[in-house]
Order: sequence, then C-alpha cells, then structure tokens
Amino acid sequence: MRFHTRKWVKPEDLNANQTLFGGRVLAWIDEEAALYSIIQLENKRVVTKYISEINFMSTAEQGDIVEIGIEVVKFGQSSLTLNCEVRNKMTRETIVTVDNIIMVNLDENGKPVPHGKTKIEFVKDRLEEED
Amino acid sequence: MRFHTRKWVKPEDLNANQTLFGGRVLAWIDEEAALYSIIQLENKRVVTKYISEINFMSTAEQGDIVEIGIEVVKFGQSSLTLNCEVRNKMTRETIVTVDNIIMVNLDENGKPVPHGKTKIEFVKDRLEEED
Amino acid sequence: MRFHTRKWVKPEDLNANQTLFGGRVLAWIDEEAALYSIIQLENKRVVTKYISEINFMSTAEQGDIVEIGIEVVKFGQSSLTLNCEVRNKMTRETIVTVDNIIMVNLDENGKPVPHGKTKIEFVKDRLEEED
Amino acid sequence: MRFHTRKWVKPEDLNANQTLFGGRVLAWIDEEAALYSIIQLENKRVVTKYISEINFMSTAEQGDIVEIGIEVVKFGQSSLTLNCEVRNKMTRETIVTVDNIIMVNLDENGKPVPHGKTKIEFVKDRLEEED
Amino acid sequence: MRFHTRKWVKPEDLNANQTLFGGRVLAWIDEEAALYSIIQLENKRVVTKYISEINFMSTAEQGDIVEIGIEVVKFGQSSLTLNCEVRNKMTRETIVTVDNIIMVNLDENGKPVPHGKTKIEFVKDRLEEED
Amino acid sequence: MRFHTRKWVKPEDLNANQTLFGGRVLAWIDEEAALYSIIQLENKRVVTKYISEINFMSTAEQGDIVEIGIEVVKFGQSSLTLNCEVRNKMTRETIVTVDNIIMVNLDENGKPVPHGKTKIEFVKDRLEEED
Repeated sequence: MRFHTRKWVKPEDLNANQTLFGGRVLAWIDEEAALYSIIQLENKRVVTKYISEINFMSTAEQGDIVEIGIEVVKFGQSSLTLNCEVRNKMTRETIVTVDNIIMVNLDENGKPVPHGKTKIEFVKDRLEEED
Repeated sequence: MRFHTRKWVKPEDLNANQTLFGGRVLAWIDEEAALYSIIQLENKRVVTKYISEINFMSTAEQGDIVEIGIEVVKFGQSSLTLNCEVRNKMTRETIVTVDNIIMVNLDENGKPVPHGKTKIEFVKDRLEEED
Repeated sequence: MRFHTRKWVKPEDLNANQTLFGGRVLAWIDEEAALYSIIQLENKRVVTKYISEINFMSTAEQGDIVEIGIEVVKFGQSSLTLNCEVRNKMTRETIVTVDNIIMVNLDENGKPVPHGKTKIEFVKDRLEEED
Repeated sequence: MRFHTRKWVKPEDLNANQTLFGGRVLAWIDEEAALYSIIQLENKRVVTKYISEINFMSTAEQGDIVEIGIEVVKFGQSSLTLNCEVRNKMTRETIVTVDNIIMVNLDENGKPVPHGKTKIEFVKDRLEEED
Repeated sequence: MRFHTRKWVKPEDLNANQTLFGGRVLAWIDEEAALYSIIQLENKRVVTKYISEINFMSTAEQGDIVEIGIEVVKFGQSSLTLNCEVRNKMTRETIVTVDNIIMVNLDENGKPVPHGKTKIEFVKDRLEEED
Repeated sequence: MRFHTRKWVKPEDLNANQTLFGGRVLAWIDEEAALYSIIQLENKRVVTKYISEINFMSTAEQGDIVEIGIEVVKFGQSSLTLNCEVRNKMTRETIVTVDNIIMVNLDENGKPVPHGKTKIEFVKDRLEEED
C-alpha cells in the first residue's frame, strides 16, 4: 500500500478527550478515496457510493502526523473499489482500516458511466508511472 | 427517530460534481453521534469505536438543508450503540443510513469505564424529558 | 420553542478567555434563522434584514453542547420574524436570546417578494407535520 | 471612524442568494470589537456583553472587499462601548451599522474588573500613537 | 506604511510549539496583498506572481493581535510590486517582512493586461482619498 | 523528489479569478515542510525560519489535484533546509518551486537545539525505510 497524503493533527482535529476526532478521520479517508479515484479514472466527477465497516483501533494526539494509504481492490465497469488504511506516523500504529470503499464514475449529468479502465493494465502501467 | 441537528449545504460542502461531499456527511454523522452520546451518558469523554457499513442513497445540492437523526440501539456497559439517518429536508430523500455506531464512554485517563446507564430507564425518562 | 440544531463547542469556537466566542454564537444564530426560514417559506433565497438587540447572559466551555431554538413571531408579506434562544445543554443556562430576527423572502433577482404563507395555517400544519 | 480591518469575500462567506452571509458579517464585527478592545484595554480577557440592533442595509458579492470600522462610544468602569460600521469598499455602500457593542474587561477568573482607562486621555493619547 | 488589517491569533493558527504557524502568516500576507492590489488597480482579477524571500524574525501567541501592513514599491505596466510587514501588536515586534510581492493584473481570460495606473498619481491621489 | 501529500482544490481554495489562491499554496507548503521536518528530526517542535523566493509558474482550478514534494537540501546543527515543489497532478505543470526552506529544531522552551541528525546517514537509512 502506498501512502500519498499526510495530515498534521491540529487543535481543530481533536475531540473533547483531546484525541483525534473520528469524524475528521472519516472526512480525510473520503477525500483521499476521491483524490485517488479522480487520478486513476482520469475524471473529476467521482462520488462515494459505499463504505464498509470502520473500526477505530488507535488514535493520535495534537502534533502527531497521520498518513493515509489507498490500494485498489477491484475495477468495476463504472466503479472503483478501494481499500484504505490510516496510520499514525509517530506511534506506527494503525488508526483505522476500511476494507471497501466503492467510488462511482459519473458523466456530466451525474449518471454512472463506464470508465474504460481495466484492473490489470491499470495497476501495471499507471502505478509505476505515478511514483 | 428524532432529528436534532440541521445543516445548510454550503460551497465548502460540495465535491467537484457539485453535490454534497461524502466526507462531510461522515464528519457530520460522527459529530452528531458524539453530541448525542455526551448528553445521554452525561460525560464529555466519549469516542467513536465502530461504524457499520455506509450506503450513500441520494445526495444534496448547495442551499439544501440536511437533517441528522439519531436513535439508541443498545446500551452496553461502557458503550452506547446508535443508529443514524441523514436526510435531505428539501427532497425528503434519505441520503445515508448507518445501522450501528458504537460510542465508548471513557474515564479521565482515556480508558473505557461503565456509564451506569441502562437501556430501559434511559429511553423512558431521559428521552421524554429531553424534548 | 423547538430546538432543532446542536453544536459541539470546539477549540476554534473559543475566545482568549477560553469561553465560547460571541461572534461564533451570532453566526450560528443567523445560520439557524436562515435554515428555519428556508424550510418555512419553501424558498432558498432568504436573507437576514434585521436583528434586535443581543444580550449575552452566560457562556459555554470547550466540549459543552449548545442548542439553538427558533420560534415564529410573525408572518409578514415578504418577511418572517423569528425569535431565537441559544442555551447550554450542559449547564441548562440561556446563553443568548434574540427577540426579533427579520428574514426577507427574495425572488430570483434578489428583490423582496411575497411568500404567500400566513401565520395561522402555517404554524398549525407545517409544525405538526415537521416533527 | 477608522477602518482597521479588511476582508475579502470568498465563496464560504456567501448565502444561497450568492450574497454575503449575514452570520459571517456578525462574526467579523464581534471579532473586530474584541480586537479593538483588547488593544485599548491592554487586556486579552475581554468578552462581548451586549450588541444593539443590527440593520442590514446592503450586501456584498464574491470578490468584493469589505472594511470594518470601530469607534469608541464610552469608557465605563469595567466596560467599553463601541460603535461599528461595515462597508463595501467596492460599492462604497454601508452594509451594516451597530450603534452599541458593550465589551467587558475580565480578570483571570473571568470576573469583570475595572480597566483603569478613562475616555478623554485614552482617545487623545492612544489613538494618535496608534496610527 | 499603513496597517489596514488585524488578525486575532486563535487556536487554529498555532503550530505544535504553540506559536503562530508560519503557513498562516503567509496566507494572511498573500490575502492582504491581493486585497490591496484589487483596491489600487480597481480590478478583482489580480493574482500573485512572485514573493521575495521571507525571514521569520519573531512570532506570536494565542490571543495576540497581529497587524499586516502594505506599501507600494513600484507600478509596472500590468503589475504592482508591494512591500509587506507583519507585526505583533502586543509585543510591538516585527514577525516578518517581505520586500517584494509582485501582483499581476489580469483580464477576463486570465491574461496579463495593463492596469493604466502610474506610480506618482496613484500614491498622491488614491492613498489620500483612501484614508 | 518524493511527493507525500495531495490536496484537492476546493471552492475555498480559489481566488476571485477562480484559480488556486496563492496564499493557500503557501500555507500548504509550510505545513508540508513542518510535517516533513517533524518526521525527519523526530521532534514535534519545529518552526519555519526562512523561505527563499517563490515564483508562481502555473495554477490550478477547482477539482484539480495538487501534489506537494519535499527534498532535503542540507542538515545543519539545529536546522534542516528543504526544497519544495508543488505541481498540478492534472496538467502535470509545476505550480511553484521553493529552493530553500529553513526549519529550526526547538527544545521545550522554544530555543534552537541540535537535532543530532547528519545528512548522509539520514538520506540513506530513513528515506529507504520510510517508503
């Protein structure tokens, strides 16, 4: 899994227990999934359709650095299924993993449309070129 | 289900498809679950432990009003399980439902601690008094 | 009065005295008045015209939960006058009350336009249906 | 009246009518009143106690520049009364005026405490020195 | 140099050392340079082209008030060069100075276009009129 | 150069020309430089001391994805000099490059303190381990 985005835990990211607010983590995950899909599908109109269960395993404190990683699970016709891990760069602990995030490729009218990407080619060519 | 919080969909809540950004909805749900638990458990130190799968059924546009509802599923010893629905006040459509959100009651050291609330009494007394 | 929206007091909502920043309360009141009017008048183009004097009676701290309530005072031709109370859900104290907030119903060119709602029917039908 | 602060109207400052959101203006006014009082009273612990009625006279659009001006009305024992005007630097129109904003000077325990400033000396010495 | 804008240092403006975050200062400088240019060039379409080296000399803490000053260095054909100072109103120390910020005047297609302003007239007429 | 962080250009990141706001880019750069230094120096107390000249070469639009890359230029005794590039993932164009960003390693009292890291070891061991 590649970790393409880092976040710095700031005061506004904390809950009243002074640990990283769960809602913020969820927003970061969804943004990263969107980012990743937009790049892979070469289409800015991508939306989240489904997120599988989320288990909060550890947390982070103010000043910690958090990394968000994404991996492709499956290329559908008009969808892309991703797997995501958020981990604390300081403690090396996993904060959250999400097994399946299904993103949908939309056309200009907001309707699902095939993205024409297939799994094998994609992983091979694009991922290498990307880093 | 009671809907205690409303949000106004603003430009910063949109994705590139000009519809409500999924990550924003997730952050709103988590905040509402935390709010609700803090009031029910009479303890500010409550954190999200688990969120069951999330299905995005419809969306909202800029200027729409979105309502977030919460219902108690179960009172555990040191946890509280909630059910959540987000709906579009304009279109009357459900945006998202989440069957189980497990919140954990913490002590001052951030460790789980029994909250002393029991399901039956609680729903009966507190919910009535609350509205 | 019905309280439809709750806010969780976060670090970014505090002043240097570590209590809830007055400006944040004012922004929350105005947003809630707008939300409420949009739903009542079934028109997204509603703006604030006038706010009567504001008396800060108590405050809130980080982690407190604040509730915002709205009540209709009067239906004008193209306006809607509201009454608002913000209270601290933790201390049960009133933070602020505002006697009159006048919202104006606009057409597509931003000009005031009659909303066709009358006081009596409205309160009776819509409020019941709404909860 | 001196205008010490300028704001650039951005997308997140707009309402659904695409004009400057009233709640944002109120938050700006309160922040400016706090800033001004902190400088005048040489104390960071200053809070808003009262704001007189607010009349929205005109508005602003995205990309407009808005100026906020403050003037001292009266020095009380532990309070400072201010007068505020917000105007659109582009159209030269007044957006809002507020006749009286009463700020209170607090001690370390959050209790009102005399600030030792008197009106005449203050305006004469401090305002000149300040610009 | 005239200081037209003040900022109140809030929790979200701090780094993990609990002092004013450098990135926030940079964003404030760029916004102020844009504001200033928009007013001077009477054109909303102005963008930053170049910023000379930035030396952080002192900092600020939560609750401090920071002032941002701008001065014209030179009027180019389609550009405006500015000089900027950010200082701590509490400690009277300079936080940062930037010798040259070059702003470019754009037309409706985003291409540089002469702004028709000349240095001498401008400083003489506009600056006086402005305060 | 490695690009560890991606940003999605949202409405609140735009200037009035509807392109990416320069001030936002600067804040992103500074945050990334801080993140990077905190990880490299294994110390959360790191602040920005100096940023060399910044040249805006291209821009980005709403919905574009922007990547921020950092490279070590030099390890000083208590400082770390970085080089930064921001590029548009969509157009493959460079938005901005900054040759030198000097970060300083602080102790608990906010005073510069040697970080004990040396260039060669670092690049060899840490960078490999990091990805």
